[in-house]
Amino acid sequence: MTTIDSQQSLFSAESYFGTQTPPPTLDQDIAGVRSFVHRQRDLGRKVVLVTSGGTTVPLELNVVRFLDNFSAGTRGATSAEYFLKAGYAVIFMHRQFSLQPFSRHYSHSTNPFLDFLEIETTADTPRITATPSKYDHLLEVLTAYKSVQQAGLLHTLTFVTINDYLWLLRAVSQELSVLGRNALYYLAAAVSDFFLPRQKMSEHKIQSGKGSLLIEMDQVPKILQPLIDEWTPDGFIVSFKLETDPALLVPKARGALERYGHHLVIGNDLHRRKYEVVFVSRGHHGSAASDVTAHWLRISADAVDARGHAKEIEEDIVAELSKRHQAWVDGPQPRPPG
Amino acid sequence: MTTIDSQQSLFSAESYFGTQTPPPTLDQDIAGVRSFVHRQRDLGRKVVLVTSGGTTVPLELNVVRFLDNFSAGTRGATSAEYFLKAGYAVIFMHRQFSLQPFSRHYSHSTNPFLDFLEIETTADTPRITATPSKYDHLLEVLTAYKSVQQAGLLHTLTFVTINDYLWLLRAVSQELSVLGRNALYYLAAAVSDFFLPRQKMSEHKIQSGKGSLLIEMDQVPKILQPLIDEWTPDGFIVSFKLETDPALLVPKARGALERYGHHLVIGNDLHRRKYEVVFVSRGHHGSAASDVTAHWLRISADAVDARGHAKEIEEDIVAELSKRHQAWVDGPQPRPPG
Repeated sequence: MTTIDSQQSLFSAESYFGTQTPPPTLDQDIAGVRSFVHRQRDLGRKVVLVTSGGTTVPLELNVVRFLDNFSAGTRGATSAEYFLKAGYAVIFMHRQFSLQPFSRHYSHSTNPFLDFLEIETTADTPRITATPSKYDHLLEVLTAYKSVQQAGLLHTLTFVTINDYLWLLRAVSQELSVLGRNALYYLAAAVSDFFLPRQKMSEHKIQSGKGSLLIEMDQVPKILQPLIDEWTPDGFIVSFKLETDPALLVPKARGALERYGHHLVIGNDLHRRKYEVVFVSRGHHGSAASDVTAHWLRISADAVDARGHAKEIEEDIVAELSKRHQAWVDGPQPRPPG
Repeated sequence: MTTIDSQQSLFSAESYFGTQTPPPTLDQDIAGVRSFVHRQRDLGRKVVLVTSGGTTVPLELNVVRFLDNFSAGTRGATSAEYFLKAGYAVIFMHRQFSLQPFSRHYSHSTNPFLDFLEIETTADTPRITATPSKYDHLLEVLTAYKSVQQAGLLHTLTFVTINDYLWLLRAVSQELSVLGRNALYYLAAAVSDFFLPRQKMSEHKIQSGKGSLLIEMDQVPKILQPLIDEWTPDGFIVSFKLETDPALLVPKARGALERYGHHLVIGNDLHRRKYEVVFVSRGHHGSAASDVTAHWLRISADAVDARGHAKEIEEDIVAELSKRHQAWVDGPQPRPPG
């Protein structure tokens, strides 16, 4: 596996959207976002866009095979719950079948909900109820879920492919820009760096034949650039860097910050991501490279929260972010040009 | 994307297992299967191995990116329920996070279970109960689930990568071979045709660099061959063919049947798979190519079952299979050699 140097493979965001086709539900999805955003604006609420889960790169138009990125969506789904607790309205834009806030506690694999429902047959008609040992936790999750639903604080969007993701992100950020500094971007999805343009896909399932398979993919355009510069210039923008080599983590996070000039990169190592993350941002003295600071958040593996549950590092991430976002909202406004 | 001809990329099953490493939980998984199989044998039950969901092909040892095959696991999870109804004990070997029997009715995306639980606050302490409109269906699913659990009829195994799948399949089929003809193989998982040998993987996340990505993968060994010839010669073996080009469906299914000489190939087209499948098998006159028959099963999109629910084609697939499997169990035994 190699990366090869090729001018032809470099798509700008503009050429990407000019040559690839939007997902069929885009207009409908965006109409939903628009009314959600306007309602939150009227109520004076801050809104966070949480992106979560991996994106796929289909290899065929009638897709059977695809390249994928590892992500169950734990970071995004967990953070969304803490953002809701912190008073944010949340647009949860996630990969289909990845974890979601609230239901994440009951993954079909690790904590299947059918196991904590019981059938009481003492009465005339059987009654469905919850297993006593699971009762308190379920009641807590269910109560939070119902209250968020009732208050209309959570809006969910779904993507599958890298193409869905790019079109949705552009359109959602344009809608969110009406909130100015009250919009927070928490871009936790694991987005593919490579894609296969429609024009290069085979129509049907690739036949296995007799030999090996050779795939050549193009680079995904650097979408953060137009997001920051054009689509939502006042939003507070947080991107993520996931690495498996700890030595690369801070340098790569710093590189992203310097390239795009946004507010914050949260770096995490694949194997330590539940226990430590690093906030890489500029200091208070402008954007000189020497002013970049790396602030570590760490919890121990046996930490518990105020309610006695296992502590989740997303609680601390969201607390720190809410503070920084508020400082941005309250900070000096740029002078009007001229 | 192309397939290239290369002798080096052809792994036999033997060279595959000789060069690739088993998943760390293999021994423990197989101990569980062994005791399940022996219990069913003592009770005189037939056992079906259902494989379900897609396999991944990791591109890195510290895996971030992988190639995947499209499969939510609907066929396997649904069929497993009908096999249980038909009196089979089921080993459900599925891709992590793909659909499972019973819980499949409550996908987090399309029918989230938190939406049909309610909190009753009329009593002194709040009570969790089910929404009236969802009650009957939930009670039916929950009753079936609890009774299967209690009777110990369902054993679940999990895989993620193509490597996990291959090692598990070999070991499980060797355990199942003690059942002779009472073992049915329902190989519905969407198994990758290509893989990347450990020896060719990069250790860390591939860096995106400045150009395009080139991946060259080797062919997965044809595992059906040793499964049929060596590991479980008496089992009734059903493989699946998924195609997107309808013209290729029967020819490809027939090709697989002729190549491996097993009992049955079920062909399905990606877009019509909920409404029609084709059973491709040999007729009663030996294995001459001209005796291959294609038997279509079809349901209409608005069909309902005996309970008034939307009809699932897996009900008919399993009914037809149980009949054919029974005929195999009752059929003439091969003469002892010599």
